[in-house]
Amino acid sequence: MTSSADITRLQALIRTIPDFPEPGIQFRDITALLADADGLTLALDAMAEGLAPGDVDAVVAVEARGFLLAGGLAHRLHCGVVPVRKPGKLPGPTLGVSYALEYGEDRLEMHQGALRPGARILVVDDLIATGGTALATGELVTRAGGHIVGFRFLIDLPELGGAAKLAARGWSPRALLSY
Amino acid sequence: MTSSADITRLQALIRTIPDFPEPGIQFRDITALLADADGLTLALDAMAEGLAPGDVDAVVAVEARGFLLAGGLAHRLHCGVVPVRKPGKLPGPTLGVSYALEYGEDRLEMHQGALRPGARILVVDDLIATGGTALATGELVTRAGGHIVGFRFLIDLPELGGAAKLAARGWSPRALLSY
Repeated sequence: MTSSADITRLQALIRTIPDFPEPGIQFRDITALLADADGLTLALDAMAEGLAPGDVDAVVAVEARGFLLAGGLAHRLHCGVVPVRKPGKLPGPTLGVSYALEYGEDRLEMHQGALRPGARILVVDDLIATGGTALATGELVTRAGGHIVGFRFLIDLPELGGAAKLAARGWSPRALLSY
Repeated sequence: MTSSADITRLQALIRTIPDFPEPGIQFRDITALLADADGLTLALDAMAEGLAPGDVDAVVAVEARGFLLAGGLAHRLHCGVVPVRKPGKLPGPTLGVSYALEYGEDRLEMHQGALRPGARILVVDDLIATGGTALATGELVTRAGGHIVGFRFLIDLPELGGAAKLAARGWSPRALLSY
């Protein structure tokens, strides 16, 4: 089980960068954690907690930072990894879901046929804030016929409410660190 | 060791999509391989061949498909993973290398201080074609003080000459599949 010493260790590897990508945003930079072999192993072990190889058919990975964690988690859980990408990046026919941003909207896509019906899916991203990306990804997984086992994040910004929205859908969000 | 049956198995999981992202390009789609638990394990094992945990300090991962494989390889080799990204994506101060495309130029960035001096680096991407991205990444790793142990790709398009350019630099490229 992840101890409080593990959490402190992970927290020490997160760097806060003010005003990125725009003024007023405190960006939580996970690259030092990813670059640290023990930190990365600890994070993947903690994200996989409660799941054993065989419990999940695929990790669904949200572009792009999510890919780095999802690839490791898929190896950890001996399952496949399915990318969810920005429009136009996937070469085959796709399913798409649009979602509102503060200004304008964005869209995420997954390959048609990427999940077999009933596939048990763990959705992985580095961070959850307002939850727009995560909810759109959950929607995509559901429309593709997948069954969501849970969502795993390294970081939650609970004041922005995204994890609560996922929980309200019954999608079992879990994050290692909160800010 | 990777057998010819393994290679045939991997090859069967690669889908060719004509005219993507533009007319005349035969796109080699690796998503079905990534989604297949045994295919992904086989690919990561084969990419790690000749390397044991402890042989590499970090996998350097090229955005974005490379991230999916690099995360798995880092877990497989118990090392860290360091992203190389398009301009403006990394939040901290960066090193950058520009490189020529057929029309225009592109640029890749890595965080300053991402590698400790002499760190043993494996560079990972899904595919090598003309080698522009790979050479720029090798340059970044070298400028950051890293020592390149090798380059690993799922797919090589040898007619486009990229792997030969890496070999000429002494950067030990290896790919599992050739088209």
